[in-house]
Amino acid sequence: MELGARAYDIVIGRGVLNQAGEHLSARLPGARVAIITDDTVAGIHLPALAASLDAADIGHTAITVPAGESSKCFAQFERLCDAVLAARMERGDALVALGGGVVGDLAGFVAASVRRGMAFVQIPTTLLAQVDSSVGGKTGINSRHGKNLIGAFYQPTLVLADTAVLDTLPGRDFRAGYAEVAKYGLLGDAGFFAWLETNWRAVFAGGPERDEAIARSCQAKADVVVEDERESGRRALLNLGHTFGHALESAVDYATERLVHGEGVAIGMMLAHEYSARLGLIGADVVERVRVHLTEVGLPTRIDQIPGQMPPADTLMDIIAQDKKVSRGALTFILSRGIGDAFVEKGVEAAGVRAFLEEKLAR
Amino acid sequence: MELGARAYDIVIGRGVLNQAGEHLSARLPGARVAIITDDTVAGIHLPALAASLDAADIGHTAITVPAGESSKCFAQFERLCDAVLAARMERGDALVALGGGVVGDLAGFVAASVRRGMAFVQIPTTLLAQVDSSVGGKTGINSRHGKNLIGAFYQPTLVLADTAVLDTLPGRDFRAGYAEVAKYGLLGDAGFFAWLETNWRAVFAGGPERDEAIARSCQAKADVVVEDERESGRRALLNLGHTFGHALESAVDYATERLVHGEGVAIGMMLAHEYSARLGLIGADVVERVRVHLTEVGLPTRIDQIPGQMPPADTLMDIIAQDKKVSRGALTFILSRGIGDAFVEKGVEAAGVRAFLEEKLAR
Ligand SMILES: NC(=O)c1ccc[n+]([C@@H]2O[C@H](COP(=O)([O-])OP(=O)(O)OC[C@H]3O[C@@H](n4cnc5c(N)ncnc54)[C@H](O)[C@@H]3O)[C@@H](O)[C@H]2O)c1
Ligand SMILES: NC(=O)c1ccc[n+]([C@@H]2O[C@H](COP(=O)([O-])OP(=O)(O)OC[C@H]3O[C@@H](n4cnc5c(N)ncnc54)[C@H](O)[C@@H]3O)[C@@H](O)[C@H]2O)c1
Ligand SMILES: [Zn+2]
Ligand SMILES: [Zn+2]
Repeated sequence: MELGARAYDIVIGRGVLNQAGEHLSARLPGARVAIITDDTVAGIHLPALAASLDAADIGHTAITVPAGESSKCFAQFERLCDAVLAARMERGDALVALGGGVVGDLAGFVAASVRRGMAFVQIPTTLLAQVDSSVGGKTGINSRHGKNLIGAFYQPTLVLADTAVLDTLPGRDFRAGYAEVAKYGLLGDAGFFAWLETNWRAVFAGGPERDEAIARSCQAKADVVVEDERESGRRALLNLGHTFGHALESAVDYATERLVHGEGVAIGMMLAHEYSARLGLIGADVVERVRVHLTEVGLPTRIDQIPGQMPPADTLMDIIAQDKKVSRGALTFILSRGIGDAFVEKGVEAAGVRAFLEEKLAR
Repeated sequence: MELGARAYDIVIGRGVLNQAGEHLSARLPGARVAIITDDTVAGIHLPALAASLDAADIGHTAITVPAGESSKCFAQFERLCDAVLAARMERGDALVALGGGVVGDLAGFVAASVRRGMAFVQIPTTLLAQVDSSVGGKTGINSRHGKNLIGAFYQPTLVLADTAVLDTLPGRDFRAGYAEVAKYGLLGDAGFFAWLETNWRAVFAGGPERDEAIARSCQAKADVVVEDERESGRRALLNLGHTFGHALESAVDYATERLVHGEGVAIGMMLAHEYSARLGLIGADVVERVRVHLTEVGLPTRIDQIPGQMPPADTLMDIIAQDKKVSRGALTFILSRGIGDAFVEKGVEAAGVRAFLEEKLAR
């Protein structure tokens, strides 16, 4: 990540978790480590990390939160801040997030806040975390008014993405993360999307193509973030599929048995392309290519694939209007002019979107 | 404050509170405002602020916390974040802190965290807040492990220091803030210290000398902060008197009826000069000038002036070692080579400090 004085490395590869100790010693000599992880990941991957830190003679302690989105809350934030301080961590010591996006977001906000900033290392263990949440410096927790509404921009010192740890990830979580991988192709890199259409099976299987897909995704996100660290302009492209996606997640009350984030993004990307087609920006062929690829990897593309009752279009519109990407009441959407050619459209007319959603819900 | 892209103005003068609306309109056109204040200040100065915002057609809402240090806690942080979101504040809207350092620190951390950063305006109403806490971007809350251990570096968009609001400040709070004013002279500006020796009565009385003392203090802090925004080197000078001071505050369990921060700083500055004399860095004449001035304005200079029992030197040393200014176990103190000539001394020998404190406590 080329962020001037705050530049840092993202190390990607099979087995890099076992080299965590060496990487930490090289970058943060003398630092002790507090590991924040969730109870699922702790059972599977914490021993390898602990062994690697032991081998490098790095003192460490682990603090565990329950797996799942509900840990991104004020109560865990307070508990972790206190636990890190109780472990007598000083400013030069490091906080290591071992887990998915939940652990990364929560631990990142803790790292940003304890003593107004401790060294922070991300070891993302889900595909979503490796290609998305661990890159870019957004950290935070949820409020009862919405997701990710409380937090900090805070860059890590190092990101270690071990692509082998994804072998233990449930298939549904892998697919959900893959929605974000496909997003990078769709938003700005037609060549990458075509490459994914050809190579997605190897990405799922864990061959060298997986490493390549993750590296290209990180690079794509890093490029946008470096250009626009504080999300005034281009960074908004990363929200392709997310305005609709977030509304759907919120509509099911974040019940992950019905819809996980990446599934919402997949449906949202589909809707964004369909809406772009309706506005005459792209043809039916582009929409079809998106649908075929998302479907072949096993991702949903239609609202009616979400189990259970969905609320009416008005409710979805209310959620969209409350979304934090609303600036002074105007709706901002990411639309597409073709594969790899998304753009930010401010001031999208709400009435048109409402009518479109009504149709989609009627099916 | 010359902080590049994050530069901002500090407006100082009698009556500037009544121009708050105009200043806000000029800097943050179209923003709505959530005011965070404490219940004491709300009763005295909120009506003037509300009237000024009304006159400028700025929508506003006020959120009140109980007066006192105990509001700098996780529970209020959560409550305020939720209240600001419930008021539907967007990122371009502004959070205004109206109050002393407690309100400024707490509201600043809320402003830094809600939507990962909202516009933030400080209207400091204590002398301490006007010359110290509102300048420099440190925000935060306390943890049960210590003061100010959780927070963010976050710069305001604007600081409005109305020197007339200090007329309603209790004398003890004014004196406590004055300890920080005197500190700027002692740490780096012998001329300012001499000016204070001559003009302190007018500063207390509220003449133009008050505005001048506050402006010079803000400038002094701003100069150090600009040079060293993240407190690696020179900024530490601002901690003159604070290592001892914090230990004393902690020793009385932050019971403000026994000791308020500025009183701790006054005693701490005295101890720092006495210890500097003991190390042969300054003569008895310098120590005496410091003692005379602090005493004539009504500040304490000796530990035995703190009412009630003090803990033994070992306990104070433990507190000092836990202080966040400890780096990997070495004690860092701010010592003096003369009036206006303080310096950062890393690796101060703990045994010497302990013996010195033992003597002071024995008296
Ligand atoms: N900060 C950002 O920029 C950003 C971007 C996108 C998403 N997010 C956030 O990320 C979160 C979602 O992340 P996520 O999908 O990684 O969820 P998650 O962290 O909840 O992980 C999903 C599940 O997989 C388990 N798990 C993790 N790694 C595993 C492994 N290697 N093997 C087996 N099980 C494993 C976890 O215990 C959890 O139950 C959301 O809170 C979202 O808001 C943040
Ligand atoms: N952020 C920083 O850089 C920094 C620097 C120094 C101190 N601080 C923090 O500042 C806090 C202390 O600030 P403080 O001394 O202003 O305390 P405070 O905010 O508690 O104010 C002191 C008392 O004065 C009352 N008050 C405030 N303005 C008044 C007015 N105009 N008239 C009458 N009463 C008024 C308040 O209600 C309160 O009871 C501490 O928490 C300390 O940690 C922060
Ligand atoms: Zn996403
Ligand atoms: Zn102070």
